[in-house]
Amino acid sequence: MSVQFEIDRERDVPLYQQIIDALQARIRDGKLPTGTKLPTVRELAESLGVTRLTVHNAYRQLKRDGWIESTVGRGTFVRASPQPKTLQAIAGDEISPDQIIRQVWDVETSVGVRNFAYAHPDLALFPQDDFWRSLASFRSSSAKLFPYACTQGEPELRIQLAQLAEARGMNVTAEDLLVTGGVTQGLSLVARALTEPGDLIAVEQPTYLGALQIAETHNLRTAGVPMDEEGPRLDALERLIAQRRPRFFYTVPSFHNPTGRNMSPTRRHELLNLAERHQLPVVEDDIYGRLSYDNMPPPPLKRDDPSELVVYLDGFSKTLMPGLRIGYVIAPALIREQLLKAKRADDLCGPSLTQHALAEFLRRGHYDSHLKQMLPVYEARRNSLLRTLRREMPDGIRWTEPDGGLCCWVTVPERPHIQGLYRMALDRGLVFTPGNVFLSDPDMDGHLRLCFGQSDETVIREGIALLGELVRTWLAETESRAMTDRSPTPLV
Amino acid sequence: MSVQFEIDRERDVPLYQQIIDALQARIRDGKLPTGTKLPTVRELAESLGVTRLTVHNAYRQLKRDGWIESTVGRGTFVRASPQPKTLQAIAGDEISPDQIIRQVWDVETSVGVRNFAYAHPDLALFPQDDFWRSLASFRSSSAKLFPYACTQGEPELRIQLAQLAEARGMNVTAEDLLVTGGVTQGLSLVARALTEPGDLIAVEQPTYLGALQIAETHNLRTAGVPMDEEGPRLDALERLIAQRRPRFFYTVPSFHNPTGRNMSPTRRHELLNLAERHQLPVVEDDIYGRLSYDNMPPPPLKRDDPSELVVYLDGFSKTLMPGLRIGYVIAPALIREQLLKAKRADDLCGPSLTQHALAEFLRRGHYDSHLKQMLPVYEARRNSLLRTLRREMPDGIRWTEPDGGLCCWVTVPERPHIQGLYRMALDRGLVFTPGNVFLSDPDMDGHLRLCFGQSDETVIREGIALLGELVRTWLAETESRAMTDRSPTPLV
Repeated sequence: MSVQFEIDRERDVPLYQQIIDALQARIRDGKLPTGTKLPTVRELAESLGVTRLTVHNAYRQLKRDGWIESTVGRGTFVRASPQPKTLQAIAGDEISPDQIIRQVWDVETSVGVRNFAYAHPDLALFPQDDFWRSLASFRSSSAKLFPYACTQGEPELRIQLAQLAEARGMNVTAEDLLVTGGVTQGLSLVARALTEPGDLIAVEQPTYLGALQIAETHNLRTAGVPMDEEGPRLDALERLIAQRRPRFFYTVPSFHNPTGRNMSPTRRHELLNLAERHQLPVVEDDIYGRLSYDNMPPPPLKRDDPSELVVYLDGFSKTLMPGLRIGYVIAPALIREQLLKAKRADDLCGPSLTQHALAEFLRRGHYDSHLKQMLPVYEARRNSLLRTLRREMPDGIRWTEPDGGLCCWVTVPERPHIQGLYRMALDRGLVFTPGNVFLSDPDMDGHLRLCFGQSDETVIREGIALLGELVRTWLAETESRAMTDRSPTPLV
Repeated sequence: MSVQFEIDRERDVPLYQQIIDALQARIRDGKLPTGTKLPTVRELAESLGVTRLTVHNAYRQLKRDGWIESTVGRGTFVRASPQPKTLQAIAGDEISPDQIIRQVWDVETSVGVRNFAYAHPDLALFPQDDFWRSLASFRSSSAKLFPYACTQGEPELRIQLAQLAEARGMNVTAEDLLVTGGVTQGLSLVARALTEPGDLIAVEQPTYLGALQIAETHNLRTAGVPMDEEGPRLDALERLIAQRRPRFFYTVPSFHNPTGRNMSPTRRHELLNLAERHQLPVVEDDIYGRLSYDNMPPPPLKRDDPSELVVYLDGFSKTLMPGLRIGYVIAPALIREQLLKAKRADDLCGPSLTQHALAEFLRRGHYDSHLKQMLPVYEARRNSLLRTLRREMPDGIRWTEPDGGLCCWVTVPERPHIQGLYRMALDRGLVFTPGNVFLSDPDMDGHLRLCFGQSDETVIREGIALLGELVRTWLAETESRAMTDRSPTPLV
C-alpha cells in the first residue's frame, strides 16, 4: 500500500485538507497510478488517527473534483491521471492546432512520457534560487505588488525590457514598449490592431500553430508562404501581395518555429525592402532569437526598420519559463494607442507580482547568466538529436539542422497523413507534434516537429532510436496498405 | 538637498543601477518632486565615491526613460511625476470610459491625492504576511510554478474556487470553472462567446464602465436599462427585448457599481423569470457580493438558475488585491468550450505563480479571515461618508445609501455636464469619477461616483467637506452663467 503519509496537527491546515493534499500529490507524481485501490474510510481514519468524518469529507471532495471514484461493493479507486486522457483525446480525433495547445498541460503533467512535442525550455535547470531571491526582495516593500499594474506594463519592467531590446540592437525606450501576457497576447492584440474580421494575413508555411489559432479565433484567413533554406520565399510573398492583399506578414525569422531555420542576412534585407516597397507591415516574432548555438544571435528585423513597418514580439517562455506569461511588443507609434486600448478591454493589465519579480530578476543580471548556462546544454542536445537522427532514420527521411532555437523539422516525403505514426508513438509513450498543425495550406509530404529543449541526451538517444524503429514499421505498413489498395478489388 | 543615499559595493547590483534605483524611489515617493534640481555628475560622483562615468551612465538612462531632463547651462532636473500628467490629461478632454481606465494607474501612484475615484479595496490592510507565507510555501517545490499553466486554470486553484462558489450557494465543481485575468477578461471572453460584432447587449443604466469599454472594443452596441431603488426596471428590459433583441443582459445585482444598490429579492426572482421566458442569457458580475455590511451577503442569481441562463463572474480585485489579476467564470456547459478556445487564443493561460499563491492563500483560510477583518472597516467608512454627505451637501443633491460594496452614487439634478466640477476638484487634489462614463444612454442629470474603500475616515470627512464646498461654488457659477446665457444678446 503506497498510501503512506502523516498528518501534522500543529499546521494551520485543516486535517481533511491535509489528507486531500497528500493524496493529490501522490496521484500527481505517479505514486498512486490510475486504478489504485485506496484504503476504506475506516482503515485510513485508524492509520492516521483521525475521525472517520474527516476522511469521509476528504474523500467526498476528491470524488467531487474527479480525483477518485467509488464503486459500491468494490471500494474507492484513483481516477485522475492525465496521461490516458491525453492519449485517448488526441488519438481519437483529427488533430487541430487548438487540440495540440489544449493538450500541452496534460502531456507536460504526465508521468514518464518521452516528450519531444513542445518547444519549451528545460525548467529543471531554471535558476530557482535567483528567482526566489528576486521575488523575496519585495517582501518588505510589497505594497507595489498589490494595486492594478500600469496597463502598458510596470515601468520598472519596461525599463529592463528596453535594455534587452537595446542589447539586440534596437533603439527603444521604456515608453515604446507594451508588456503582454506572453507573445500569444502580443500577437492577438497586434492581429486585431492591423486587421478587420475576414481579412487575409500571410504566414510562413509551416508556421507557429498559435498564429493559426489566433487567426481562426478572430476570423482571419491565412495564406502560407513556402520556405527554402534561407527563409520564406519572397517571390511567393510578392505574388500573394499582388493577388490577395494580406494585411501583414507574420514571421519567425530567427530559429523559426517549427523548422528551426534561421533567415539569411540577404533574405532579411530583401524582406525589409519588399515590405517598404509594398508598405506591408511585418510582425516579427523573436522569441527564439537569443537561443543561438553556433554564432552570435542574429539581429532582429526591427533593428533595420526606419519606416516603422516592423512590429516586434518577444517573450520569456522559451528562454526562462512559460508560467510567467510575460512578453512584450515594440510597435510603430501609429498603432500603439490601439494596442493599449485593446489590452485595457481584454484584461486591464497584467499581474503586478510577476512583472516586478521579472524586472528584479533582469535587473540583477540573472537572465543573461541563465542564458549563458543554457546555451551549451541546448547545443549538446541539438547535437545529440542530429547524430541520432542520422544513425536511426531510414533513407528518404529529411530533417533541418537548426543553428539555434528548440525545433527540428522532419519530413517524410509523400506521406501527408502522419496520424498513424503519431498514434503508434503515443502508444509507446513518445510524443512529437504532427506537422499538419503548422500548415496554413495543405502539403503532400508528412512532417513532424521534434523539440529537443526539455529532454536530456539519454532520453534523446533512446527516444529517437525508438522513433526511427517506429518510422520503419509505419512506412512498411502504409506501403503494404497502399499495395493492397492498389490491388484490384475482387468482384465478390 | 534631498538626494541623500548610499551605495553598497557588497550587493550584486551594479553601482550605476543602484543610483538609478535610489533616484527613482525618491522621485516616486515624492521626496524629489518635479523640477527638483539634481547634483551635477561631478558632485554626485564625489559624494558617493564613484567614478563620473558611473553617474553619467545612470543619468543617461534616467533621461532616456523620462525620469529626469537636462537643460544646457541650467542643469539636470526631475521630470517624472505622475500627478500633473494625470490632471492635465484628464482635464483637457471630454472624459471617456477608456480615459478613466487609462488614468487609474497615474492617479493611484500620485502622491497626496484625496482619491474617491476608484472602487478599490484598501491595500494597506492587505494581509501581506499571510500572502507571503502562502507564496513561500512553494519555495522548496517551485517546479509547478514554472511551466505553462492549465488554460482552464490550475486545478488546485479551481478546487478552492469551487468551494467559494459553494459557500455562495452554487452547486459547482472544479471542472465547471474557468480562471480568467480578472473579471475584465471573464466579461471580454463571455461577450465574444455570446455575440457577433454589431450585436446589441443590454446593460444597467448606469453600469460598470469596463463593460461599456469591452462592448466598444468588440463592436457591440449597448442599450441602458434604467434602475430604481430595487434594481433594473424589468418593464424597460422587457420592452428592450421585444424591440431590439439584445444578446444578453449584463448586471451587477449585488452592491451595484456605480450606485451601490442591492437588487431586491423580488426583483431577482422576477429577473430570472423574465430571462427564462425570453431565453435571455444573464451575465452576473458578483465581484462586490461578499462586501455586505448590514445583512448576510445576498445569494447570487446563479444559485437559482436551473435552466443555465446565468453566466457568473467573480474576482478578487475588490476583496483582496487588484494586482493579482485573477477572476473566474461559471458558464453554462453550452459555451464553456468556446470560452476556453478564446482564452487559448488570447493568452494561452494565466501565470502559474499567482494562481498557486492564491490557491494556497484560500486553502489556508486567509480569504475569509481577511474579509471578516475588512467588513467593519468599510462599514465605518460608508457610515462616515453618508454622515458627511448629509452634513455638507447643499439642498437638492441626492445620493444612494449602499448596504455593501464600495460605491456611492451622487446625483445633481439638471446638471448633465459635470466636467467643470471635476476639474475644480482635481485642482484641489480631490478625485472622483464623473458619472457620464457609466452611462450607456445620455441623462439629463449630473452624476458622480464616490468610492469609500481606499480612504480612511479622516480623509473622507475632510474630502467630502471640501467636495460640498466645491459643489456650492460650482452650482453658483453654473447658475450665474446660465443667467448670463439667458440675458438678451446685445445687437452690437
